[in-house]
Amino acid sequence: MTHLLLAGGSGFIGSHLADRLLRRTDFETLTVVDNLWTGRAENLRHVTDPRLRFVQADAEQFRSDIRFDEIYNLASPASPPWYMAEPRRTISANVAGSLNLLTLLKEGGQFAYTSTSEVYGDPLVSPQPESYRGSVDCTGPRSSYDESKRCVESLLFEARRTAGVRVKVVRLFNVFGPRTRPDDGRAVSNFITQVLRGMPITIFGDGLQSRSWGYVDDIVDALERFFWLDGTDFPGPLNVGNDREIPVIEVARFIQRLFPQVPIVHLPPTPQDPTNRRPDLTIMNQVLPGWECKVSYEDGVRRTIDWFRAELGLA
Amino acid sequence: MTHLLLAGGSGFIGSHLADRLLRRTDFETLTVVDNLWTGRAENLRHVTDPRLRFVQADAEQFRSDIRFDEIYNLASPASPPWYMAEPRRTISANVAGSLNLLTLLKEGGQFAYTSTSEVYGDPLVSPQPESYRGSVDCTGPRSSYDESKRCVESLLFEARRTAGVRVKVVRLFNVFGPRTRPDDGRAVSNFITQVLRGMPITIFGDGLQSRSWGYVDDIVDALERFFWLDGTDFPGPLNVGNDREIPVIEVARFIQRLFPQVPIVHLPPTPQDPTNRRPDLTIMNQVLPGWECKVSYEDGVRRTIDWFRAELGLA
Repeated sequence: MTHLLLAGGSGFIGSHLADRLLRRTDFETLTVVDNLWTGRAENLRHVTDPRLRFVQADAEQFRSDIRFDEIYNLASPASPPWYMAEPRRTISANVAGSLNLLTLLKEGGQFAYTSTSEVYGDPLVSPQPESYRGSVDCTGPRSSYDESKRCVESLLFEARRTAGVRVKVVRLFNVFGPRTRPDDGRAVSNFITQVLRGMPITIFGDGLQSRSWGYVDDIVDALERFFWLDGTDFPGPLNVGNDREIPVIEVARFIQRLFPQVPIVHLPPTPQDPTNRRPDLTIMNQVLPGWECKVSYEDGVRRTIDWFRAELGLA
Repeated sequence: MTHLLLAGGSGFIGSHLADRLLRRTDFETLTVVDNLWTGRAENLRHVTDPRLRFVQADAEQFRSDIRFDEIYNLASPASPPWYMAEPRRTISANVAGSLNLLTLLKEGGQFAYTSTSEVYGDPLVSPQPESYRGSVDCTGPRSSYDESKRCVESLLFEARRTAGVRVKVVRLFNVFGPRTRPDDGRAVSNFITQVLRGMPITIFGDGLQSRSWGYVDDIVDALERFFWLDGTDFPGPLNVGNDREIPVIEVARFIQRLFPQVPIVHLPPTPQDPTNRRPDLTIMNQVLPGWECKVSYEDGVRRTIDWFRAELGLA
């Protein structure tokens, strides 16, 4: 009997990963653990596969007599307004959550974790290779997310070094697409929900800070290949993201062209907002040859607009 | 009723801090929580003060109906061979430990934490000011200590930002002196226990890596002043250490001069051993004017030799 555990499976990326896992035929159960803090039950409402079991629980509290063959830990808020509002809970979800979930891994099982490009902080090199040690202010207002992700990377690579645990760690750069919370608070979904409601587009700061937006389908393609399809034993950390770097203001203007009546308004910058962010994909090209972000941000934004329109009942 | 909690109070620095706390007359109880992993019951054996209560427990498991006015969290291994052997436990002790202890703090109470110069990793600037973001490999073999300390700094400064918790965080540079475990594994105590047993002095690598050794009495002077005596409300992080930087080989040769029959042997370097480490004391000089490491390393080494001689029954 093969049992899979997906923590954070009701979230934006987690629910897409659940869909990919459910395409497989080589397991008996997929247990999704989610406390529905930032995840939404709606994200898995379409699933009818009887192998899916949903448990509403914190990752750090979840108990089970089953030992799992594969654990996917995506249980974390990922948007600054959410983790900045509840930093203690963010650290607990990631670090205490991973400590707990590790105890539920079957001997010889695989533990996969979605870390983040935020481990690089406000990077002083561009693009960022996995070997870059980062520039994170560990006492700053974004640190609960950045440091807890760094700490879980440490936990997993140390579990690998000292106990031979099979780990797979990715560092996700910015991701956008359907199933983002309408109140997520990050740029693309913010802009889209704003224009769909006829509100001004708000940009924090001058908008010249750049990001590398990957459409969720492309990102989950990489996760699926890295975590199980390609059979690689490379543990990571592996940068996963779009290496086309785009200023926030450019995305806003693109969306504005689709909704020309909407103004762009600048608000004060978010504290310690990184000025740039772009993955070095050298290792990616070796580990998952042929993978790239195929969906342009223009295309991805259009698809995301369609999804939000339906989601918000504006179709 | 004023209740103090000292986690890790049976450890090297923890027990010295216990002695200083017990000089105070303004509290009813001092609860020491220690699991005696790297701490030693002997370190508090001399205490007869009835206000001291000892509880053998992990910091992350300790439960109490008392809410504490002041919490001092020193519960962590601090020597590389110890934390590298049990990284998961190290992360749990620091992060899950601090998460748990925070729940035991009385409203308006003060939470003090001994972080480390290891948050700077293998630093690219010297001396290291508190604003330096560090160069830590978060997947490396020393990361369990470095990253869990960074993560707890984040936890505390975020608790301060979002919930107004009064925190005091110091970053301790290398400390040595009486009550170090004979099997601690760090340079000064290693050298001393080796020469006292007539064994060769072993140096990892060429010995040109430098450290800033502070004698424990001086370091605990700073903790006492910063945590309660001076009444400062500066939360830190505050570098505490000796800014006289000395190559490891120089300490070995000094000790060798006291035991001239003992050879020095070089072993392979420890993985990712920092090449240098020296505190920038600019903020220290403002926050605790007049504080400095008064005991020279030569003097401190002599005193530590005397202590180890008695401890090892070689007096």
